[in-house]
Amino acid sequence: MSYTLGIDFGTESARGLLVRTENGDEVASAVAHYSHGVIEDHLPPPDADVRLPSRWALQHPLDYLEALGAVVLGVLSQARVDSREVIGLGIDFTSCTVLPVDHDGMPLCIRDDCRRNPHAWVKLWKQHSAQEEADKISRVLAERAPELLQQYGGRISSEWLFPKILETAEIAPCVYEAASAFVEAADWIVWRLTGERVRSACTCGFKGMWRGEYPSEEILEEFSPALRNVVRDKLSESVLPVGRRAGVLNEDGAELCGLRPGTPVAVPLIDAHASVPGCGVADAGRMVMIMGTSICHILLSPDLKPVPGIAGVVEDGIVPGFYAYEAGQPSLGDALAWTTRTLGRSGRADDEAFEELEGGASRLTPGESGLLALDWWNGNRSVLDDSDLSGLILGLTLETSPSAIYRAILEGSAFGTRTIIESMEAVGLTIGEIVACGGVAGKSPLLMQIFADVTGREIRVARSRYTSALGSAICGTVAAGAHESLGEAAGAMAGLRDECYRPAARHRRVYDALYDEYGKLYDHFGRGGSDVMKRLKSIGRA
Amino acid sequence: MSYTLGIDFGTESARGLLVRTENGDEVASAVAHYSHGVIEDHLPPPDADVRLPSRWALQHPLDYLEALGAVVLGVLSQARVDSREVIGLGIDFTSCTVLPVDHDGMPLCIRDDCRRNPHAWVKLWKQHSAQEEADKISRVLAERAPELLQQYGGRISSEWLFPKILETAEIAPCVYEAASAFVEAADWIVWRLTGERVRSACTCGFKGMWRGEYPSEEILEEFSPALRNVVRDKLSESVLPVGRRAGVLNEDGAELCGLRPGTPVAVPLIDAHASVPGCGVADAGRMVMIMGTSICHILLSPDLKPVPGIAGVVEDGIVPGFYAYEAGQPSLGDALAWTTRTLGRSGRADDEAFEELEGGASRLTPGESGLLALDWWNGNRSVLDDSDLSGLILGLTLETSPSAIYRAILEGSAFGTRTIIESMEAVGLTIGEIVACGGVAGKSPLLMQIFADVTGREIRVARSRYTSALGSAICGTVAAGAHESLGEAAGAMAGLRDECYRPAARHRRVYDALYDEYGKLYDHFGRGGSDVMKRLKSIGRA
Repeated sequence: MSYTLGIDFGTESARGLLVRTENGDEVASAVAHYSHGVIEDHLPPPDADVRLPSRWALQHPLDYLEALGAVVLGVLSQARVDSREVIGLGIDFTSCTVLPVDHDGMPLCIRDDCRRNPHAWVKLWKQHSAQEEADKISRVLAERAPELLQQYGGRISSEWLFPKILETAEIAPCVYEAASAFVEAADWIVWRLTGERVRSACTCGFKGMWRGEYPSEEILEEFSPALRNVVRDKLSESVLPVGRRAGVLNEDGAELCGLRPGTPVAVPLIDAHASVPGCGVADAGRMVMIMGTSICHILLSPDLKPVPGIAGVVEDGIVPGFYAYEAGQPSLGDALAWTTRTLGRSGRADDEAFEELEGGASRLTPGESGLLALDWWNGNRSVLDDSDLSGLILGLTLETSPSAIYRAILEGSAFGTRTIIESMEAVGLTIGEIVACGGVAGKSPLLMQIFADVTGREIRVARSRYTSALGSAICGTVAAGAHESLGEAAGAMAGLRDECYRPAARHRRVYDALYDEYGKLYDHFGRGGSDVMKRLKSIGRA
Repeated sequence: MSYTLGIDFGTESARGLLVRTENGDEVASAVAHYSHGVIEDHLPPPDADVRLPSRWALQHPLDYLEALGAVVLGVLSQARVDSREVIGLGIDFTSCTVLPVDHDGMPLCIRDDCRRNPHAWVKLWKQHSAQEEADKISRVLAERAPELLQQYGGRISSEWLFPKILETAEIAPCVYEAASAFVEAADWIVWRLTGERVRSACTCGFKGMWRGEYPSEEILEEFSPALRNVVRDKLSESVLPVGRRAGVLNEDGAELCGLRPGTPVAVPLIDAHASVPGCGVADAGRMVMIMGTSICHILLSPDLKPVPGIAGVVEDGIVPGFYAYEAGQPSLGDALAWTTRTLGRSGRADDEAFEELEGGASRLTPGESGLLALDWWNGNRSVLDDSDLSGLILGLTLETSPSAIYRAILEGSAFGTRTIIESMEAVGLTIGEIVACGGVAGKSPLLMQIFADVTGREIRVARSRYTSALGSAICGTVAAGAHESLGEAAGAMAGLRDECYRPAARHRRVYDALYDEYGKLYDHFGRGGSDVMKRLKSIGRA
């Protein structure tokens, strides 16, 4: 019997999943929370002597190594599997989560000369402090490389690699100078484990504006003179496609994670993206929705069709031979937790409050409450890509119940997904069935039915609760040579549950009418009819 | 020592207030809830064999007499005052609360041949089933008597006298035929007590389109041929101005209420309107805000200036010698109760939940939350006069707290009042200080400060908690001849608390900016930019 390990590094914790190589059966799973968690908002990083401005989200890189060791130990001991039976290892990571390191791969934040500077720490994917830098990069690209910009939906996000590096170069030039490289945390883990300085085409492609090559020195210089040579000096390791082997565990790496030296390690993926093979999807036409804190929508297609307002499209970014399209909505689980906390009887986002709202909302029919919500509690990622938008609820009366508001927020999320689907269809992409995964997909049957009714598509849910970790394990089997290809491995090791959420015709008619109203509000508040949401963010702070 | 009694007939209960005639000192107060309460929505009236459609709100007239006896007995025994020391009685009542009676003043609903028909019962002020009839009347007046319509703000409300009568005439002609008169409950009580069939200029003027006379037979005939002779046949008792004596207690009336025969009884007022003398206001330029379930705004002025969108303006309607302007917002206490119930930890609108929200909201600064609300949970009365509008909250984020939403709803109410003030100022009326009364004015200091900041006006709160009952008692003293005039009596017997809510300059600047945004949303959703609120009310019900 042989096993493969997938390790999914999330925002708050890492999960290890041990599966049978042959069929993907999950034999053990373990979670380790990061000791320092997310260092956010106004808190200083552990060793910094400054207070952070808002929109910061830092992490401690040693937390990752600690969690890695813990989850490997956890699954092996749970399953009573010997490390010699583990034939391969795959990992996925949040992205763009990036850190500056020295030539040995040592994070600058643990060096005495840098630890007090917040820019020396890991900038987590959701750090949004580099908005100005992102805007500047978008402007330069609009002029100098419009087709590149178009491929990223027309705007560069403050979450991505170059805004984060540019911010460091401009605000903390000493950190920028001290850095031998800026690496994605995913690649940094692989480097620690294998000694190989390679980069994943998945993270480079989706978050680093890499399409076979990075932007030219001339363009980088326009971002800032300091960045002219950043590719040559601080980024230029080889970029490997997904589904390949990145290297094998060296002695240090084997000791770190408690596996055998020589164990193959796969090229890492972005966590959400690893869910695609983890759902058993390695073909065109099925949209995968990863439904957690936020929603990530991924579609594979043989064709390149730039879609306005989506997060990006990357050739071979997830499955070799396909363009991978990514779009997203920046709050789903977050918004449900807000709703449960705000409207639930306990004031907490606990199970009892959730069940009460879900139960009450399930007894309402579409349109019955007269409510409509714009689902922008955390801004809009696709199609508008505007983090300054905010949530709206309309139609409130003295009879409005908490459950009705809860349902309106679910419906708003579904309408948001429909706008994404329609913007993809508008350029000729084909979307048949929807495949859902992630914690929220399994938690709320009402949500899934509403998504089916609103999008008019059948939705099936992934068999695994841990599709990212499973997707990583699948990559690990391919790296180990146990399966021929990612497609074959995904087909053998992952799949869907039997049940299917089917759109109900009588609901669709009502939802078509509500979606029409949603579209009008969407355009009014999101496309220039009214900028009130932006102004409200500043009025009280002037 | 002499005393006067004021009795305030509210929606759920009656309150009796015994005061010293000389200075208005409140010596005893008692409440009696109506045995049948409000018979609303889908419940049948006690003896009817039909189920009511929505928007109904009926009452049982004998509840009023029962409550009257109870509160008079209550205050006299509490204060150990003999009924011979009571020199006068005044009453106020919700309006337009109307019932059909036979020639003796017997309510039709207690007759065997009518009791099973809901139209034979008291239609409470908030019964909204006659919307079609109200719309028809508005259309006829727009063509035939535009200046009359203008005096009522451009639209006749479904709550008022003629829509309610017209509905009965059209839907229940047998009840209409059987009725010798349709009387306001206020006038009916006076009739029971004194034997005098008189009508109050306050109710006739504000709710009955009476301006010295009712609309002509020609116009009434256009409402419906059945109504051609309604004034002559069913309404034509003498109309007496406020501040006069309606009659004295006859034997039956004295027995009913437990006072001496011969005790003078004042011409009754509408409950909210009685608060104006009850606040000590009998002059021009101070706006009285009666802040309860809803807000009623009343302004006295020597000048007649029709204001678009207000509820009405009536000469001598409250204080002789002044035009009384009435405007309103249909939810305040209701909306706060909704908020407390929806966002409070207990799920109930209890004191603890209220204190928690009020406390949290008080720690926020204007604009800090980034929220903005349209206060239309129960529609908009003035200036838009549109009950199909609904509430909106905008600016929601994952960080939005329940207290922030609570505060936004208070602010939305204050913005709504500011639109009313500005529409009065726009036609040349002058508004200086604001005088507030009613349960909500005493309950939330934060609300009062926000109203001061938003309107830019000093606000003082009435000394009495029971301004309506006190206003009625004041009318009772005038009816008894103990004071020369309503103005003199109000000055002697009522007044304001010492404390004053003053607008803070730094708050005003922020609120001016927020009010500007409120105005844009107000116009967009309330004045034809978008009809989404109306459409949402029908989409799920089609």
